[in-house]
Amino acid sequence: MSPEFDLSSYLATHTKLVEQALNQALPTTRTQPSVLHEAMRHSMFAGGKRLRPILALAAAAACDGDTKSALPLAAAVECVHTFSLIHDDLPCMDDDDLRRGVPTCHVVYGEANALLAGDALVALAFELAASHPGTANYTTGTIVSELAHTSGSRWLIGGQVLDLQAEGDPSKVNAAMLRKIHMSKTAALLTCSLRLGGMSANASPLQLDALTEFGHATGLAFQIIDDILDATQSSDKLGKTAGKDAAAGKATYPAIHGMEKSKKEALRLTRRALDSLVIFKGKGAPLEAIAHYLLDREF
Amino acid sequence: MSPEFDLSSYLATHTKLVEQALNQALPTTRTQPSVLHEAMRHSMFAGGKRLRPILALAAAAACDGDTKSALPLAAAVECVHTFSLIHDDLPCMDDDDLRRGVPTCHVVYGEANALLAGDALVALAFELAASHPGTANYTTGTIVSELAHTSGSRWLIGGQVLDLQAEGDPSKVNAAMLRKIHMSKTAALLTCSLRLGGMSANASPLQLDALTEFGHATGLAFQIIDDILDATQSSDKLGKTAGKDAAAGKATYPAIHGMEKSKKEALRLTRRALDSLVIFKGKGAPLEAIAHYLLDREF
Repeated sequence: MSPEFDLSSYLATHTKLVEQALNQALPTTRTQPSVLHEAMRHSMFAGGKRLRPILALAAAAACDGDTKSALPLAAAVECVHTFSLIHDDLPCMDDDDLRRGVPTCHVVYGEANALLAGDALVALAFELAASHPGTANYTTGTIVSELAHTSGSRWLIGGQVLDLQAEGDPSKVNAAMLRKIHMSKTAALLTCSLRLGGMSANASPLQLDALTEFGHATGLAFQIIDDILDATQSSDKLGKTAGKDAAAGKATYPAIHGMEKSKKEALRLTRRALDSLVIFKGKGAPLEAIAHYLLDREF
Repeated sequence: MSPEFDLSSYLATHTKLVEQALNQALPTTRTQPSVLHEAMRHSMFAGGKRLRPILALAAAAACDGDTKSALPLAAAVECVHTFSLIHDDLPCMDDDDLRRGVPTCHVVYGEANALLAGDALVALAFELAASHPGTANYTTGTIVSELAHTSGSRWLIGGQVLDLQAEGDPSKVNAAMLRKIHMSKTAALLTCSLRLGGMSANASPLQLDALTEFGHATGLAFQIIDDILDATQSSDKLGKTAGKDAAAGKATYPAIHGMEKSKKEALRLTRRALDSLVIFKGKGAPLEAIAHYLLDREF
């Protein structure tokens, strides 16, 4: 990692830009129906790390793009991410009461309003994506398609279904299926964030390939590390109910591959992610620092 | 109505085109995860009348457009409509077991899969909308925005929330609020269907205004008639649980305005809808016939 790159200052500046963009994109709580907009804002501003939007901005910078052009797309992926969390936490899904250290949307606003707040965030995501004028290599249609395809039945939503099936019968989950679940549920939207950032900067095909490679590798590493943290940390530190995976008898990387092998795999994937950044030279520094940061989360 | 226009033949031909487009747009049940794609198809092919897509095609024809350009957008609005029905039927919402005469999605596939099938249909809707190349007057971004805005917290989803609040305390629902609920929940997506059809045909601003006026009037009339039918018909005839509104103490047009005044209002709105078609001359014949057809549903 470039020793001179100051990640915490980078994150502070860029998180602020993302927060501003999201605050502007979401209707105020005075907009009718108030309870819906309150529910949307409750989950959107519940202390998320904004990893996906930051990746979008960092990818745009790696391709010589400007932050302003990437911001609506960065906000759009965060809307999709937050929607998926709200629905994932519902009683008929993971039934989780705590997320990022605060009560989940349905706990505060009831199931129906939480369901609808999630639905409304998806629509908002596409409104944001559609507001992008596109670039020479990427039309608005390509940009919206990228987000829609990733959010759909083959990736994000498909991954949720596979995950539910795996919970129902974890003994049937082999290494390949676990990888497929992690790729669909986590790596796909991380990769989409990077690609949308790249598209906003009119990335070359080679640059877009590199961002895709980086996304797949960090996305999978990220989920493996999450699995490890769930098994080793307290709820307090995680900001969500810990040990849930084991309690649910869930198939996880440590459960299938063992703890040591899982840590090694996270490290190997992070190295692969870093290798993919070579073509960006110095401009990949933020992405490089983020990959290290994700690996070095406490475990 | 032009006496020579054969609506049943028009509906037969165009419904078939819509069914084909939807069948092609939805992944097959062999696509993983199978249960998700089965759930999506269960609700999508459960005997819907395809009113919204037909309106999109008829609007395109009124503006001299061709069916092929309107079809992806027609399919997209049907995906949004079906998503909203699946989520609306969930236990935490209206908790309905029967829709269009068949068991609802969650009854067959469980709540989690139904929730996710709805989510996946929204994503598919935007993938379809994004596939449209746009026209001289309307970019792909404008087209996607139209669908996203209509599906979002200010219209479709906002209307659901208002409807839930109204069910919670129907005594607080006055005529203006009931109108707002009907406009948001029903008229907005019908209007959007017409506008998207018009956009696919590169409608002039005047034509788009006329389609909007037609949509608002028929959309409101449609919902008033639905309220009337719910109060007067059997479940068998409706293909869904009848008398539900009254049982839920729900605010409806007949409940607020009385049966006779509700029928008169539906008639008045239909006339207004027909008036708005004047600028399309003979090419508005399918829309004209559909407006008559909606009014003349048995009550």
